Amino acid sequence: AMDGAPPPASPAGLSVFVAVSQLLGLTLLATTGAWLGRYRGGVAWHSPLQFNAHPLCMVLGMVFLQGDALLVYRVFRHEAKRSTKALHALLHGLALLIALVGIIAVFESHRSKGIPDMYSLHSWCGMATFVLYLLQWFLGCGFFLFPGASFSLRGWYKPQHIFFGITLFILSITSCLLGITEMLLFKISDSYSHFVPEGILANTLGVLLVAFGLVVAYVLTREEWKRPPLAEELALSMDFKTLTEGESPGG
Amino acid sequence: AMDGAPPPASPAGLSVFVAVSQLLGLTLLATTGAWLGRYRGGVAWHSPLQFNAHPLCMVLGMVFLQGDALLVYRVFRHEAKRSTKALHALLHGLALLIALVGIIAVFESHRSKGIPDMYSLHSWCGMATFVLYLLQWFLGCGFFLFPGASFSLRGWYKPQHIFFGITLFILSITSCLLGITEMLLFKISDSYSHFVPEGILANTLGVLLVAFGLVVAYVLTREEWKRPPLAEELALSMDFKTLTEGESPGG
Repeated sequence: AMDGAPPPASPAGLSVFVAVSQLLGLTLLATTGAWLGRYRGGVAWHSPLQFNAHPLCMVLGMVFLQGDALLVYRVFRHEAKRSTKALHALLHGLALLIALVGIIAVFESHRSKGIPDMYSLHSWCGMATFVLYLLQWFLGCGFFLFPGASFSLRGWYKPQHIFFGITLFILSITSCLLGITEMLLFKISDSYSHFVPEGILANTLGVLLVAFGLVVAYVLTREEWKRPPLAEELALSMDFKTLTEGESPGG
Repeated sequence: AMDGAPPPASPAGLSVFVAVSQLLGLTLLATTGAWLGRYRGGVAWHSPLQFNAHPLCMVLGMVFLQGDALLVYRVFRHEAKRSTKALHALLHGLALLIALVGIIAVFESHRSKGIPDMYSLHSWCGMATFVLYLLQWFLGCGFFLFPGASFSLRGWYKPQHIFFGITLFILSITSCLLGITEMLLFKISDSYSHFVPEGILANTLGVLLVAFGLVVAYVLTREEWKRPPLAEELALSMDFKTLTEGESPGG
């Protein structure tokens, strides 16, 4: 079955859920753009609009790209693990860079307006998430991408990496929801309770963020959709088992 | 091994994590009480303080009790499944009741002060979480507690129940964080950015909520800590397999 056979198809349900996640992800970005463009004057760097780069970068980096980075092992389930790993690390790296731009935007905007930093629950959650996400990225590279780590060390770290990966993704979305609530209460505190369109739009953005997180988490945690080991990976781990446990192969 | 043998011990790490979760849970309740008592005038029903029953009930019901309801299959891992199930349903039922009181508190408080309902992202997330939690409770009772549902129907629903159970727990915590942010920006918007003690305390409550969620989710998702089937449950599912698949037993 290893040579000549057609590549195995992905489970049908998986493709539907991945398609829905991407649709939600793009709607997310469009809704963020619509909010900032239609009600908040748009986005610009050296200007009073610099703050608006913050929500845009965080949604793009910490939610959309981070979510897609988590999905690569499900989407590219029959590619070689090495290339999928590289894509996973690359997407997370890109997410980190874009998030860094978003963080610089809010600190520079605060400085130019004389607003104190890091006093709100949003800032505490968001900064903790970003720092731990950066740490997780370095640990992931160290354990899985560079050849130094032993087989058993990787085996120990892998479930931790997966748990904290999903946790950081959820914390990123939570931080966005806190940011939306803060921004609405700063900008439209007088009209928010009258169901003005900007409030409804921003609330809808919050609901879309939750929906994106829900679909991505469902795809990631569904047992049947996990990436099956390729034939050659199975052979390799068999060899390894034989070596370490001293059993005879082919039992 | 079924008769006379001492009951198997729980994994050591599990006990530590469960103890930490309970410590965090109690700290959570104490911090909520301290915030409301020290800075918000305390809690009372037919009074302007009625609103304060809302955060207290939601943290107690939707976070602490819901979290503990999720943990019972890990904590009582060697009890009969029937009694553990009943405790699981009971704790969730209690959580729902207390949360209902908390929801009534905020609606009555809004009515008496002429504040509109259900306009904020916090209210959208919170209400959606409560309604879906109630639905999940009814579905859980229908599928698992009453004898009507077939073996295969239960097998299909179980992973969905677990996924949405953890999701609703996370959404509950997220809704609490949104509520904390709203409350701080309503009550201390002028002093919040000056790092006043009330702001720090409420932010800390948010961090504790995240920590509680993290520890509970870690305990729930760790593969080695899942509840092992009892000997008689294994025998039963073997019999069932034999019956449905027509294989000879003991293969």
